[in-house]
Amino acid sequence: MDPHGALYLQIADTLAQSIRAGTLARGERMPSVRDLARRHGVSVSTAVQAYRSLEDAQLIEARPRSGYFVAARPPRLPEPEVSRPPERSLPVDLGEVAAHMIRVGHDPQYISFGAACPSADLFDNDRVRRTVSRAIQRNRALLTHYPVGPGQEALRRVIARQALRLGCPLDPSRILVSNGCLESITLALRAATEPGDIVALESPTYFGFLEILENLRLRALEIPTHPRTGLSLDALQLALDTQPVRAVLAVPTLSNPLGSCMPQTERRRLAQMMSAHGIPLIEDVIYNELAEQDDKRRAVKSFDETGHVMLCGSFSKTVSPGIRLGWIEGGRWHDKVARLKAATSGGQTPVMELALADLLSQPGYESGHRHLRSVIAARVDQARGVIARSFPKGTRVTDPPGGFILWVELPAALDTRALFEACLAERICIAPGALFSATDRYRHCVRLGVGGRWDDAQVRALGRVGEIAESLLQAQRPSAAAAAFRAERIRSAV
Amino acid sequence: MDPHGALYLQIADTLAQSIRAGTLARGERMPSVRDLARRHGVSVSTAVQAYRSLEDAQLIEARPRSGYFVAARPPRLPEPEVSRPPERSLPVDLGEVAAHMIRVGHDPQYISFGAACPSADLFDNDRVRRTVSRAIQRNRALLTHYPVGPGQEALRRVIARQALRLGCPLDPSRILVSNGCLESITLALRAATEPGDIVALESPTYFGFLEILENLRLRALEIPTHPRTGLSLDALQLALDTQPVRAVLAVPTLSNPLGSCMPQTERRRLAQMMSAHGIPLIEDVIYNELAEQDDKRRAVKSFDETGHVMLCGSFSKTVSPGIRLGWIEGGRWHDKVARLKAATSGGQTPVMELALADLLSQPGYESGHRHLRSVIAARVDQARGVIARSFPKGTRVTDPPGGFILWVELPAALDTRALFEACLAERICIAPGALFSATDRYRHCVRLGVGGRWDDAQVRALGRVGEIAESLLQAQRPSAAAAAFRAERIRSAV
Repeated sequence: MDPHGALYLQIADTLAQSIRAGTLARGERMPSVRDLARRHGVSVSTAVQAYRSLEDAQLIEARPRSGYFVAARPPRLPEPEVSRPPERSLPVDLGEVAAHMIRVGHDPQYISFGAACPSADLFDNDRVRRTVSRAIQRNRALLTHYPVGPGQEALRRVIARQALRLGCPLDPSRILVSNGCLESITLALRAATEPGDIVALESPTYFGFLEILENLRLRALEIPTHPRTGLSLDALQLALDTQPVRAVLAVPTLSNPLGSCMPQTERRRLAQMMSAHGIPLIEDVIYNELAEQDDKRRAVKSFDETGHVMLCGSFSKTVSPGIRLGWIEGGRWHDKVARLKAATSGGQTPVMELALADLLSQPGYESGHRHLRSVIAARVDQARGVIARSFPKGTRVTDPPGGFILWVELPAALDTRALFEACLAERICIAPGALFSATDRYRHCVRLGVGGRWDDAQVRALGRVGEIAESLLQAQRPSAAAAAFRAERIRSAV
Repeated sequence: MDPHGALYLQIADTLAQSIRAGTLARGERMPSVRDLARRHGVSVSTAVQAYRSLEDAQLIEARPRSGYFVAARPPRLPEPEVSRPPERSLPVDLGEVAAHMIRVGHDPQYISFGAACPSADLFDNDRVRRTVSRAIQRNRALLTHYPVGPGQEALRRVIARQALRLGCPLDPSRILVSNGCLESITLALRAATEPGDIVALESPTYFGFLEILENLRLRALEIPTHPRTGLSLDALQLALDTQPVRAVLAVPTLSNPLGSCMPQTERRRLAQMMSAHGIPLIEDVIYNELAEQDDKRRAVKSFDETGHVMLCGSFSKTVSPGIRLGWIEGGRWHDKVARLKAATSGGQTPVMELALADLLSQPGYESGHRHLRSVIAARVDQARGVIARSFPKGTRVTDPPGGFILWVELPAALDTRALFEACLAERICIAPGALFSATDRYRHCVRLGVGGRWDDAQVRALGRVGEIAESLLQAQRPSAAAAAFRAERIRSAV
């Protein structure tokens, strides 16, 4: 049986969407189990399974002798406002915090909200194993054959087919397979920039991007970003008009960490801006399949008529994290990217490329995504509820239309590096806001990834993060008072 | 049956070594089949198999009714002399020739001497397939688990054990797995240099290194290199004393393309020089397992007491070309390399790492290498014979103690880019000498890789390369005379 295609999950997904869309109102009574079974032409036990799954996701609650009700909406926190990074570009120096955070964030001894990775239980391991084994049986000769060139054609064709879902008709012969999305983006930046050049990007942005900029000695120009609509194109336009920006790096769908999704009209405008300025947009579509609505998945690249968008993707967030492959379509920089790729790391392991091609072609692919989106959405809902209940007064949190990342703004007095250290002492890992900018503008913020293992321990630990934040704030207040007192004494002693 | 462990091959290998060492002289009669069988305590048919295998390798010849004789040594050509590159560093710009050559060099429609890759038939495909399948069965959970960190510990431990054969006791926790040796070297250079820095390297050198330098905007300082003993350390010392060299990149064992092997005393001296100057040697040991004698396999790293040697390796030339993994031990640059690696391409596919670890641990590993060395040595012998017979007068060729690469110096009047083009027209691919330097010093040379498919068609094609070279030279002579005539007419017309 393919659990992802299971009937009860399809029913649960449909209901979950109605609840999230508000079609089924909070507190409303759900149809009886018998009604549900009849409506969908399924057995009562399938209907019960569907409700249990929604209950697990805390979208509905059972009330004794009354049936199921749509769960009360968790108390809502306000969202962060548009970011206001400085208008000058900065060299990047993240220091060791990011590396330390990543190390701990993947250490199974810690409860981790630090990583932006979905947990293994979200994937159909059996299907992946069967597919990989079959790829090896069928293509055994490739195991001892030297890989050269852009990657297996079968995989490049499937990637091109998948890109149609993003509105992009790509030529498979211009797709390069890579060792993951990070490598794709590094190649794109190397092809389009020289050391010292300015790269514009969302603010806050993924620390992995900042590390690449740091390593390539590029300057980061952080652009104001709205937590719902992403990059402010007016601000970007101003930057392009006044500064020698050489490339724009962005995640238009489910940006990391804000979870913003750029509206379609803006996507078209962004493509036109790149074309007009003759510089590339490096568009990372790694999260596109996790967005709830189809229109949010359409890539900026689909509006690109001049080859100024370089498209970078991977399937590690949506198909199988343990198959480390990505891809890039380099637009008018294709030849240069191809040369850099060949010279930097050669090819990938061909049998794994073919296994991935097979996985992407299987009929369960789309329903697997629906399942993933639905489970993740339930976790995010629950996490937002915990944050609303446990975090200090004044906390703001994003409400992203998909994905498993929340961006939390705590009261300005809190330094989340101290929160990070204090949480580590209790074996909890978070990603402090300082990692997400070349400035110290987000020192009171944290990114919380809730795509990892998720059970009661995680829920308790998340609440505990809020309590620790609160106690750090409390501890600061008297010391602030003491500092004022000391300052007063010094003044009076002079 | 494991063909690599087969008894007849072990016997053939022993005999082949005696022939190559001269213990069995050219023209000498071999023991009778019965004698051989008795001496080794094997059946007559096994002894026949051993002789057939030596015959295939053209090391012995059967004479009707007289038995087997050591084959006559092919006519010997002189070896190239020590290279004399310019004493200034140069920016690198290889243009499109390398990419074009690589593309064609792996196109099965061409007979290729362009690639430096062993052909698939040299590897035990069954063993690899079984091992990879088993790794997937045993570690299936890893297929859906996000890889983080330096690579699977099992593989890093096996790499450390293998490095003992190079005389290097490495700490597995300081080994990083990579996507191949090219990635390792790119990381090492990025960790140790800034754009514009000078890197010293062998001359001629592997074009892949020059491409990396070009991409990282580093300057190449080519050091005189002896075709037998490698880098001239006196010349290197002079360079270090007079120029701001920031790193040395070298292949002390079986350099590409010369096949030089640095003597042990020189290895010790090189390690000390790096230490004294406080700069890294980036040592590529990708070919060490292909060297005929153990002392040639010992790494410079084994003499490094101060962490100034960064060791880069891979198993794609010796275990399985289709498993695209390499490694690096970054010495005192370890932390920086680790950060660059994490930020540039993250981890590799964990199940493939574990499959490789298993392959490297299997008992057949060492005998597989012996087999590989012996088959390759026979091909190289045969290729040198063809070159001696078919190439133009004045040709020189290397006589490397292992590996499958020959460096051929043709008469100075020949431009091997023209030879490359003329060979392509006959569906033969060679690597023109211009690729192996930032100067045009080697425009009359070619590199011939004979590790690929090897049968009569290859032997004929190799002879054809010599004939085409000869005809190009012939065509040049009258045209040189015509040019002189034209010059004379112009002079007299003035």
